[in-house]
Amino acid sequence: MGVVQKLDEKITLEEGAGGEEMINLLKKSILPFIEGRGGNVDLGVRELDDGAAIRLNEREYLVVTTDSHVVKPRFFPGGDLGKLAVAGTINDLAVMGANPKALSSGVVIEEGFDKDELEKISESMGQTAEEAKVPIVTGDLKVLGRGETDGILINTSGFGISSKLTPTSGLKPGNKIIVSGTMGDHGMTIVTNRENFESSIKSDIAPVHNLVRGVLEVDGVTAMKDPTRGGLAAALNEMASGSEVGIKIKREKIPVTPEVRGAGEMLGIDPLMIANEGKVVIGVEEFQAEQVLEALRDHELGKDSEIIGECTQNNVGKVILETEIGSLRILKPPRRKPIPRIC
Amino acid sequence: MGVVQKLDEKITLEEGAGGEEMINLLKKSILPFIEGRGGNVDLGVRELDDGAAIRLNEREYLVVTTDSHVVKPRFFPGGDLGKLAVAGTINDLAVMGANPKALSSGVVIEEGFDKDELEKISESMGQTAEEAKVPIVTGDLKVLGRGETDGILINTSGFGISSKLTPTSGLKPGNKIIVSGTMGDHGMTIVTNRENFESSIKSDIAPVHNLVRGVLEVDGVTAMKDPTRGGLAAALNEMASGSEVGIKIKREKIPVTPEVRGAGEMLGIDPLMIANEGKVVIGVEEFQAEQVLEALRDHELGKDSEIIGECTQNNVGKVILETEIGSLRILKPPRRKPIPRIC
Repeated sequence: MGVVQKLDEKITLEEGAGGEEMINLLKKSILPFIEGRGGNVDLGVRELDDGAAIRLNEREYLVVTTDSHVVKPRFFPGGDLGKLAVAGTINDLAVMGANPKALSSGVVIEEGFDKDELEKISESMGQTAEEAKVPIVTGDLKVLGRGETDGILINTSGFGISSKLTPTSGLKPGNKIIVSGTMGDHGMTIVTNRENFESSIKSDIAPVHNLVRGVLEVDGVTAMKDPTRGGLAAALNEMASGSEVGIKIKREKIPVTPEVRGAGEMLGIDPLMIANEGKVVIGVEEFQAEQVLEALRDHELGKDSEIIGECTQNNVGKVILETEIGSLRILKPPRRKPIPRIC
Repeated sequence: MGVVQKLDEKITLEEGAGGEEMINLLKKSILPFIEGRGGNVDLGVRELDDGAAIRLNEREYLVVTTDSHVVKPRFFPGGDLGKLAVAGTINDLAVMGANPKALSSGVVIEEGFDKDELEKISESMGQTAEEAKVPIVTGDLKVLGRGETDGILINTSGFGISSKLTPTSGLKPGNKIIVSGTMGDHGMTIVTNRENFESSIKSDIAPVHNLVRGVLEVDGVTAMKDPTRGGLAAALNEMASGSEVGIKIKREKIPVTPEVRGAGEMLGIDPLMIANEGKVVIGVEEFQAEQVLEALRDHELGKDSEIIGECTQNNVGKVILETEIGSLRILKPPRRKPIPRIC
């Protein structure tokens, strides 16, 4: 027992993978100490959502989010660390139901890092911010000694204004579940790139706030989430347990490109378990599902949208996957050794 | 020339020290790429202030700031990394003239880090937030592999509401310069602790927003800054060049404890060149200076406040120090090899 306890006292890589172990670490070693202290908020750290919401007035919430970005390789088909840092934070705001207003950028660099590379990453941040029309308004820079950080790390925080929150915990029994496109593209891009695996896969990385804006014009949207770390499996599990509903989805309805599916089979990686960076999972009242689908498909980023399942009163907190041969299995959040530094 | 150019292409520790080299790096490799892209703000990254301001309505600004915190040792007399992360960001908001409303916390940990230590740091963050009545509302956690980060790094972003901005660039000729207490306590604590130097010095780390609130009730405050990285020397130089005024200060008026002064002499470190974490530098119209001084001294954190000098029309962008023997010299921002990881 002594040994088990000792191991348990040190942080493991698994505890950063976005799955159950991470939630357990947060619930044991961080949240009890910081949550609910210092003031009241409408949606805070306890909810483990993509961001927090603070009521500004009768009609509006201020939504705040933060994310530290590390990825290797830092440049990959479809994007780079700078684009990831900006799009990732815009997306966290968007799926909370907020209109993103501004971003901050906290850069931590290792001594000896290439200025050329820093400039390329900065340029990509600026370009992504410009295209998205969400400015980077403030920043911070720290330079650490060799070996004190690995290259570069970017924390992007953001805030936006929402008149209707779409929290992770908003699902109701009977709601339909929609995904805005193919699953696993970003994660598979990073993995195949690292493995020098020949492929035409590229990251789906993109700001989704304009896509989401169209969705929010339809009534009846109850919940949204961006399936990043841990992929669709992690996102749906968090939505099911946060909302206290079951979720039943059909494998054959979930869009996955042939390239991602093929690479996943070769490498033994389930596309539902790895990150997306330009996709949204949406919960919507049944009678409005087709309209949300239409709004999504009207936008380039949402052209492959599909209704993939619905919420149930039974199996609370669980995600049930109907496989392509019609059998049922529980889709758990990823628990294996994570693929590190993917987003 | 080849060699010089090569060296110039890599980031150096000096470029993270808060002095001229850092401003040059920001102006060359980061700001041109990100500033002013994506939207308009009233006070953005270009101003290199403690935060950004975005107009919300006729009366109010939203103020946003971000800071990545690393310090070694992580526990020191008077505080620890957790307290630093929360107080530091509250202070950046306060000196912008904002009432701090909420914080985010982005934690990056190295595999193998002690959970015990994580819990102690989290507890300190929670306690500091509670005492300050500024809640931590959202967070992010990343676990990196061994050697990919050194222990733990915390990014704290924050936002607040201001009805009167007090930017770094707000000084006018004739304004008086006030400091809210003794200089160099935090920096000297970290240095003496590292050197195992016997001393009773402790960090001044504290949220200053309540102290600042009293100051803002007096009319005529034009500028504020917290003298952190690079100490008073860096803060005054940024204020002088940002405001396009000269600043003349008297050495004998600047409060420094005998312990900090003594340790500084032993170690060859100028207390004006190292970080403070619970102090404010204030610019105020001459006729209101005494009232600001009174407001400061009414608060425990401001009891040692002093008027240390004034702004001039000549020597624009420079800080002139009158020494204790009456001679004048230019007080430059620190340019030497930095004391790393002090805040």
